[in-house]
Amino acid sequence: MPRKIDPIAIASAIKNGNRLALSRAITLAESTKLEHLELAQEIIHQFEPHQHSKRIAITGIPGVGKSTFIEALGLYLTQLGHKVAILAIDPSSHLSKGSILGDKTRMEELAKNDHAYIRPSATNGNLGGITSRTYEAILLCEAAGYDHILIETVGVGQSETLVNQISDLFIFLQLPGSGDDLQGIKRGIMEMADIIFVNKVDAFQEKLIKDAKVDLARSLQFLPPKKSNWKRKTILGSGLKEKGIIELWETVEKYFAQIQENNYYSENRTLQQSLQAETYILEMIERQTKEKLKCNPINKTSSNAYLMAKEWLKENQN
Amino acid sequence: MPRKIDPIAIASAIKNGNRLALSRAITLAESTKLEHLELAQEIIHQFEPHQHSKRIAITGIPGVGKSTFIEALGLYLTQLGHKVAILAIDPSSHLSKGSILGDKTRMEELAKNDHAYIRPSATNGNLGGITSRTYEAILLCEAAGYDHILIETVGVGQSETLVNQISDLFIFLQLPGSGDDLQGIKRGIMEMADIIFVNKVDAFQEKLIKDAKVDLARSLQFLPPKKSNWKRKTILGSGLKEKGIIELWETVEKYFAQIQENNYYSENRTLQQSLQAETYILEMIERQTKEKLKCNPINKTSSNAYLMAKEWLKENQN
Repeated sequence: MPRKIDPIAIASAIKNGNRLALSRAITLAESTKLEHLELAQEIIHQFEPHQHSKRIAITGIPGVGKSTFIEALGLYLTQLGHKVAILAIDPSSHLSKGSILGDKTRMEELAKNDHAYIRPSATNGNLGGITSRTYEAILLCEAAGYDHILIETVGVGQSETLVNQISDLFIFLQLPGSGDDLQGIKRGIMEMADIIFVNKVDAFQEKLIKDAKVDLARSLQFLPPKKSNWKRKTILGSGLKEKGIIELWETVEKYFAQIQENNYYSENRTLQQSLQAETYILEMIERQTKEKLKCNPINKTSSNAYLMAKEWLKENQN
Repeated sequence: MPRKIDPIAIASAIKNGNRLALSRAITLAESTKLEHLELAQEIIHQFEPHQHSKRIAITGIPGVGKSTFIEALGLYLTQLGHKVAILAIDPSSHLSKGSILGDKTRMEELAKNDHAYIRPSATNGNLGGITSRTYEAILLCEAAGYDHILIETVGVGQSETLVNQISDLFIFLQLPGSGDDLQGIKRGIMEMADIIFVNKVDAFQEKLIKDAKVDLARSLQFLPPKKSNWKRKTILGSGLKEKGIIELWETVEKYFAQIQENNYYSENRTLQQSLQAETYILEMIERQTKEKLKCNPINKTSSNAYLMAKEWLKENQN
């Protein structure tokens, strides 16, 4: 990266729709170097926070068809004239790792579209790190005019909680016939979900689909109500055949109308902002501590690591 | 957990070979509560650090036969009269999640053995956390007289680095015919490995085995030398048929003889101890920061999370 980076210039390029500038700013935010994060924050600071964007998290286990679904949704939204940014934080994602031919064609179609911006994330398995930086990526995409943000994640438990902290709406994809094992991790994800999209319904027998619907309805009724007062909805469809995408989007719009009206939208964003501030605080203090440890190494005379730690803290904390 | 826990009593029970006391102490160490960790540390403090134990990390991708290998090795060691503790930190491990019949029988055999102690870890995907607590588990097992510690982990990249920080020896399991994709994560693991055990050789064609041997020899020669001056060794065998286990163990003993002689053993342990102390320091400071955040919440007037964080740090750091 070159030495001189002008945050004001990058910010105005982003505002003017320069995708390269946008990508560069996100790369700065993702950097582990503090000076890069500071620059990214200066760029972000040039913009007002977006009050009408839609931040939509999409999750589901590998094989459920997340990428295909996201691409179908992305294309549909650009056809409606929306500007869409896709943040793929699933490391095994088709978006980041190449894909089968069918997906690729569609992805390419979306990638060529001026109204779509696709960003695979530069992660290496650090779940916390991903989301912390995804927050900046969202703000930067919104600054560039992409007011529909699709955040892809993989269903592994921990990452969902974090993604929930940066999105307004949570869509959970599942396959028909997998409703009977609603327990553990999956129950946790269900609780977070606002919309459950049963994907690939064309590929399954009608009976299975019906069962899935009944199972889901039963499961959902036992879940605690959402803070937004939104009643979780189930939609049957197929990302591959663009089936259910229109119904899904109508539901999404209903959801946003409701949470704008009951103020959950802005209350939740305020809460998320302070959670993000807490993440920054913890990160910065960790950074400082590591610096301090470099300057004042631990006294290695003790034979007990815990006592060594306590002694160091006594001497290095004021 | 009951209110009154007497660390001195637990420590002496551990010394007397009480497995329940050992398990209880490890549970205390794994707890997220600071008072529990403190109690575990008090228990650990009752013992001198072990100067002759063997801490052996074993890793490999899922399906390579880690559990079977570890069980075969564990049984072999108990037959030699050694006391063996097995710490299974692979979340998808057979040891923690139930297993197929063949494994189960063998596991049960090992579990019934007075000279073996098996501890599946109570993790939830937090790689850092695992290893931090595995360190205490090792110390406690050693205090209970288990001087051969087998630490199982799954090959995903990040966790190996951490496990390497708590073990003396690193065994990497691989299958024949997978030597040609020695790149990326796997190369990193190979670099850390002291012994490469090519597993399940009975199940593969002779040609593949020969190729694997040649490939490995070629790959190993390009790796930088180990700090211990140990020359990485390859062993062909099968955990299922106990093939290669004797040769493996002879190699392990040669390894320990060498690193005891050239002082790497104690130098490495001293280094690991201060790394562990650093982990404690970072954990304790994070804990303190979270407490502070509870007492002095972030001022939510700003519209920028990063500025909110900086402001809070200015006001709350002396």
